[in-house]
Amino acid sequence: MATQRILDFLATRRPSGPCLVVDLDVVRDNFRAFEKALPDSKIYYAVKANPAPEILRLLAAMGSSFDTASVAEVEMAMDAGAPADRISFGNTIKKERDIARAYQLGIRLFAVDCVEEVEKIARVAPGARVFCRVLTDGEGAEWPLSRKFGCVPAMAVDVLRHAKGLGLDAYGVSFHVGSQQTDLTAWDRALADAKKVFATLAEEGIVLKMVNMGGGFPTRYLKDVPVAQAYGQAIFSALRKHFGNALPETIIEPGRGMVGNAGVIKSEVVLISKKADNDNVRWVFLDIGKFGGLAETMDEAIRYPLVTRHDGSETAPCVLAGPTCDSADVMYEKTPYPLPLSLTIGDEVLIEGTGAYTTTYSAVAFNGFEPLRSYVI
Amino acid sequence: MATQRILDFLATRRPSGPCLVVDLDVVRDNFRAFEKALPDSKIYYAVKANPAPEILRLLAAMGSSFDTASVAEVEMAMDAGAPADRISFGNTIKKERDIARAYQLGIRLFAVDCVEEVEKIARVAPGARVFCRVLTDGEGAEWPLSRKFGCVPAMAVDVLRHAKGLGLDAYGVSFHVGSQQTDLTAWDRALADAKKVFATLAEEGIVLKMVNMGGGFPTRYLKDVPVAQAYGQAIFSALRKHFGNALPETIIEPGRGMVGNAGVIKSEVVLISKKADNDNVRWVFLDIGKFGGLAETMDEAIRYPLVTRHDGSETAPCVLAGPTCDSADVMYEKTPYPLPLSLTIGDEVLIEGTGAYTTTYSAVAFNGFEPLRSYVI
Repeated sequence: MATQRILDFLATRRPSGPCLVVDLDVVRDNFRAFEKALPDSKIYYAVKANPAPEILRLLAAMGSSFDTASVAEVEMAMDAGAPADRISFGNTIKKERDIARAYQLGIRLFAVDCVEEVEKIARVAPGARVFCRVLTDGEGAEWPLSRKFGCVPAMAVDVLRHAKGLGLDAYGVSFHVGSQQTDLTAWDRALADAKKVFATLAEEGIVLKMVNMGGGFPTRYLKDVPVAQAYGQAIFSALRKHFGNALPETIIEPGRGMVGNAGVIKSEVVLISKKADNDNVRWVFLDIGKFGGLAETMDEAIRYPLVTRHDGSETAPCVLAGPTCDSADVMYEKTPYPLPLSLTIGDEVLIEGTGAYTTTYSAVAFNGFEPLRSYVI
Repeated sequence: MATQRILDFLATRRPSGPCLVVDLDVVRDNFRAFEKALPDSKIYYAVKANPAPEILRLLAAMGSSFDTASVAEVEMAMDAGAPADRISFGNTIKKERDIARAYQLGIRLFAVDCVEEVEKIARVAPGARVFCRVLTDGEGAEWPLSRKFGCVPAMAVDVLRHAKGLGLDAYGVSFHVGSQQTDLTAWDRALADAKKVFATLAEEGIVLKMVNMGGGFPTRYLKDVPVAQAYGQAIFSALRKHFGNALPETIIEPGRGMVGNAGVIKSEVVLISKKADNDNVRWVFLDIGKFGGLAETMDEAIRYPLVTRHDGSETAPCVLAGPTCDSADVMYEKTPYPLPLSLTIGDEVLIEGTGAYTTTYSAVAFNGFEPLRSYVI
């Protein structure tokens, strides 16, 4: 996944210290693949995955819409050229003053998952469209979602009815099948729930129009995943099955799926050592770790592919850790990572599939280390 | 732990958005308490706990030395007025070019835990003092250390012998009993290991001079902890027991113990909701979470005291979560947190004991939220 452009950039520029390099060509290809796979769905790029201005400008120019988590992200999307009607305020947890600010900026589409949030929106964003997030089971996801977002489908009916009663546009429902979702039937189950909310409210004369199918589209880490096309077909079949000919508008919110495989982190081996002479597992310390951008190695959830100049030679398991004085800054320990025996201090290690959820997760200055630098080419 | 000065500051300045307020009077008291408890030990403040310039300047002026994790932290300590001979480069994982840079800045005291690191130091910091970190068992600590730092005592002997052979000053050993260590016997066990290293090397004519007893001194969260005085007595007794009249120089490296209880985070309730009408646990969402500075709630390790204007009234358990669109951004869920039933959206929540390991852990821009602001008064 380190494209030739990325390799050439690293060879030419030789940046010192860890950095992320993102290849816009890959982002462009990913956007087109989503368009082709789900031609009837609008793509709302999840800005939080990687808000680099170059990425936002490319996607805005290609016609993408944007899913934002804060007023700052709304502003980033607008600065990149997206008009307000292509921006959704997709965070279900918003301060009332932030809703008001987004409304002033022209935002008219808001996520909710409870009546309390509906009431804030009714007060400061009159007439806005709201969609209610429903809880899904998250089965099959590599980074399963907790119950943090959404409510049970029965409560979603109440929430949307309440919105309508307060003069808002009860616009639709959303769900998220969990990040890196590889079980295609997850969308089927979630769409069945969505349809129930549509049907119940239709009986009361409230006609929802949109289903926001969220993200969860995987990027390729170590395992092969079904390609976008397969996702598109499975989702379209599920839509037909549950909604028949009365297909709603649909939205998807890829984040990781749009930029994950477009980025590679360049790092350096700082130290290789053992804890005792008779240990058979080496500790390999890189100049980037959990607090420098690899937060998603938490609980060893995401296992990034590592590339070194010694690949192909004999390997042995290593504990992989970051450079900070924090004992929690260990990426892979329970399941040690096989790395070449010939790996040495000073060697470059490329960490692939790191275009999403790295730069922004990076700690601002932990241990005095600067946040992850990023180059978008 | 919210001092009157902090409360007055918040009442007067009314900062909007989450922020940390640190009271320097408390830091000053903590430094004096450590001095009094361990009058024969040199205090090396662990800069990573909170590198705010005001804190570093105060401690430098009071005569503190500094334990640093990176060249940037070395520079911060020097900028605050600490001379190079009061600064230790305490990270066992260092790039050779960073060791060289620190040496150029005058740093002569370095941590190691393997021969590979010794060799780097011998190449670019000739004649420097090195101390070798030994592994401890970490029993009794709230935030137990993994095996990331240190080596077994037998290997420490090899490491220090190697240092001597390469012309370095084999200066001593260090250990860390684990963060928030409340078991006073942990120091006794670690000092027994340290003494063994001293004794073995003494037989070869290598005379170590220093024991670095690290940090681990707890700050007060929800549970009472033995006061600094009790720590001092226990440590002094253990030193006497193992070293007799030939007491080595000793160093301590308090971080959390120096600033943890000096800081309070002001946050705001963004949303209170349920996931289903019949749920009996409320979800309370604050405007700060795991990615905004409360990283140490990971695995619900540290349970901060929360203060609201409704304290004393009837409470019920809540799941406590942060404001980001990340399902992992939940602070307390397995063990819900009792909060007043009358708590409402917009209420201020003070999070006490947050002076350490918050501002620097904060993500640089996750979800577009700015890093935790900090006021030192």
